[in-house]
Amino acid sequence: MVDPLPDRLRRSFLEILGPTGLLTDPTVIDGYTVDWTGRFRGSSRAVLRPGSTEEVAATIELCRREGLALVPQGGNTGLVGGSVPHEGELVLSSRRLTALGAIDRRDAQVTVGAGVTLAAVQQAAAALDLDVPVDLAARDSATIGGMVATNAGGTQVVRWGTMRHHLVGHEAVVGTGQVVSHLSGLVKDNTGYDLGGLLCGSEGTLGVFTSVRIALVPRPPFRVTALCGFADVESMLDAAATWRRAIPELDALEAFTGAGLALVVARAGRADPFRDRHRWYLLVEVSGRQDPTDHLGDVVDATPGIAEVVVATEPGARARLWSLREDLSLAINALGPPLKLDVSVPAGAAAQFLGTVGDVVAAVVPGARTWLFGHIGDGNVHVNVTGADPDGEAVADAVLRLVARDGGSISAEHGIGVAKKRWLHLSRSAAEIDVFRSVKRTLDPDGILNPHVLL
Amino acid sequence: MVDPLPDRLRRSFLEILGPTGLLTDPTVIDGYTVDWTGRFRGSSRAVLRPGSTEEVAATIELCRREGLALVPQGGNTGLVGGSVPHEGELVLSSRRLTALGAIDRRDAQVTVGAGVTLAAVQQAAAALDLDVPVDLAARDSATIGGMVATNAGGTQVVRWGTMRHHLVGHEAVVGTGQVVSHLSGLVKDNTGYDLGGLLCGSEGTLGVFTSVRIALVPRPPFRVTALCGFADVESMLDAAATWRRAIPELDALEAFTGAGLALVVARAGRADPFRDRHRWYLLVEVSGRQDPTDHLGDVVDATPGIAEVVVATEPGARARLWSLREDLSLAINALGPPLKLDVSVPAGAAAQFLGTVGDVVAAVVPGARTWLFGHIGDGNVHVNVTGADPDGEAVADAVLRLVARDGGSISAEHGIGVAKKRWLHLSRSAAEIDVFRSVKRTLDPDGILNPHVLL
Repeated sequence: MVDPLPDRLRRSFLEILGPTGLLTDPTVIDGYTVDWTGRFRGSSRAVLRPGSTEEVAATIELCRREGLALVPQGGNTGLVGGSVPHEGELVLSSRRLTALGAIDRRDAQVTVGAGVTLAAVQQAAAALDLDVPVDLAARDSATIGGMVATNAGGTQVVRWGTMRHHLVGHEAVVGTGQVVSHLSGLVKDNTGYDLGGLLCGSEGTLGVFTSVRIALVPRPPFRVTALCGFADVESMLDAAATWRRAIPELDALEAFTGAGLALVVARAGRADPFRDRHRWYLLVEVSGRQDPTDHLGDVVDATPGIAEVVVATEPGARARLWSLREDLSLAINALGPPLKLDVSVPAGAAAQFLGTVGDVVAAVVPGARTWLFGHIGDGNVHVNVTGADPDGEAVADAVLRLVARDGGSISAEHGIGVAKKRWLHLSRSAAEIDVFRSVKRTLDPDGILNPHVLL
Repeated sequence: MVDPLPDRLRRSFLEILGPTGLLTDPTVIDGYTVDWTGRFRGSSRAVLRPGSTEEVAATIELCRREGLALVPQGGNTGLVGGSVPHEGELVLSSRRLTALGAIDRRDAQVTVGAGVTLAAVQQAAAALDLDVPVDLAARDSATIGGMVATNAGGTQVVRWGTMRHHLVGHEAVVGTGQVVSHLSGLVKDNTGYDLGGLLCGSEGTLGVFTSVRIALVPRPPFRVTALCGFADVESMLDAAATWRRAIPELDALEAFTGAGLALVVARAGRADPFRDRHRWYLLVEVSGRQDPTDHLGDVVDATPGIAEVVVATEPGARARLWSLREDLSLAINALGPPLKLDVSVPAGAAAQFLGTVGDVVAAVVPGARTWLFGHIGDGNVHVNVTGADPDGEAVADAVLRLVARDGGSISAEHGIGVAKKRWLHLSRSAAEIDVFRSVKRTLDPDGILNPHVLL
């Protein structure tokens, strides 16, 4: 429990935010203080819900004066505890920043309030045969502001890159209370430092996005999904590497294991589309202005090591294949809160890593179960461990050291949050972390923005 | 003239850099103190040529202690005076940072010393059927370090984006002397702030790149170039907008005028491939794994307003079409140093801008001649003015205000340098410039890096 907000502060916040902008009822606040996996739980005296950039700026200025720490929160779908108030910070919610601009068809861009969900932008874009280049399973909850603040990746990075690649304009309030607004969306614009790119991926520690302009991509008329079963990890990785080079319109390249498929079948009631069970599966999706089915078929036929393949072109059948991959997180979560580690490994080290990480985990916690899946097309592996303490530092330590030894990243797309702070030094040098701290002090001199995250 | 370097400093630099790393002969230094257009000329007591990141760090540390300002210089091909010592600064040259790593075929990346020229990387990449995604006419002199420091654009941005999009790793020394090194090149790596992206485009004011890792792109076997003549600017712009949407493998979309073509023919001895002279020309280049000639032909045939078209598929013929565009800068320069303004305008304002900018210039300096060309596919127009003072602020002021009024950028790809400092406020708010200054103070607290540039 935390003390209630003093009347003086309540009045000040009400003046800035209005009655719909301030939540202080503990039962209402409760939903904002825990992440969806249940792993990170904190407390807060108030949820602040500004409705404009000016209200965000005034809120941050007030918090600076009063020395109040804030945790920016979008859809709260993160996995590293980056959007939960850990020690009584106030929650700065983007839920009321929901303006969705008209899509400019000529330059395929749109200006979006930070609190708009990915699904809402996808829907608006689809009406003009356009698409958001970043997609992820949490699309109905994840907000664009949160996705930019964390440089979200997801399933289509192999084709389009991460959010930073598509951020063409921003409006944000930095920790000093200054508003930096540059929403023109010009493709070429070398007029100073890339503040948008700096804030992107900073996990709310430097500033708060209120609105962003993002580039959309064409939504091709044809799309085909194939799920291939492999008898061993090397064949699966060789196929992934070959397909990346051979298929220019490759939208996704996702890997998961036979054990994962069995879990989804058992827990989520999905049907196994295969005759046999295989050790590894690779889901590949290709799109095009011409029907790519034949080309994909040729490429798959020419790939050694495929034990069985299922192809889907019709949206319902494609969605069923995707559900085998996308339901995996929830199915694992249903076994109890897992320890979740999101890492990336260089292509040359992937086979070694996938082959040994389960043993490394079991050596630390005998009986623990390691689930491997992820966006293998860009080296991104989600390591989930069940049957061990989800906060168990020994398992995380062993896995992250293995990653660092192989030249990988201890956080591919989820960020550092609070969960990986103590291992940041495995991926970043002391000099880099020192420079990060200098940048943090500059843009958030009072340390009020997400103070327990990243550094 | 400047005083020679005191013996004490000479000895200190020699200790760090060795005899090949320090140039103090005034006749040798002279070539480092003027830009290629002859517009920006300064002076210096020494050119420092470190051969490693450690030598760069030691040089910057010494300069910090001694309060000596530095101008980082790559190929010195910039156009805004960003790499010339204006008030006696020392020149920090990257010419000896020429290590070119082996290209990793699996992830299509390469680690390159800052002083390696674009042409050298292009040549190494071509041997593996890969290409550098940014290309520009100064490729034989422009260095990769300079291109990253200025976020270079060039002719292929319409397809691939600017340098920042392809920077996947960096090693740099910031103004504090700290080395930030992150060369792993992982596609997904959310472990802290994007320092590489922040330094990219900072024009040497925050740090000095010593080595970068860049992503390469496939070099497709087929490539076709067409040059189309148009009777009016609206038809040309409509064609450019349509082709951007209709041709997914569009590599370049360059515009220039009939007057520009006539100048290149007269000054550079190039042959005019057309029967008639036209008001505007659009050079379009398309590549593909299948021969795109027929598809381009169909698209061109379906485009209204084309008066005449020349298509080239053979490398020599393609190069001849490109020379009509690429020789334009030199041909204009031969008329005497021009006033060069590099701007971008939103698609909706381009016709108005191209139609009026010549009149705006002539109203300020009657008899001045305005040459328009550029990467029209991304709204980037190079405005060159001859017959006026190349440093004439009145003309620049009139043009840049016109750009800003239309929501454009006062610097599309050349950067701010010293040339556009006084107009930065047209594209950036006071709050943004204030934040830029804070970032500058943080990473270069003594203000020794390129002190006369940008801010």
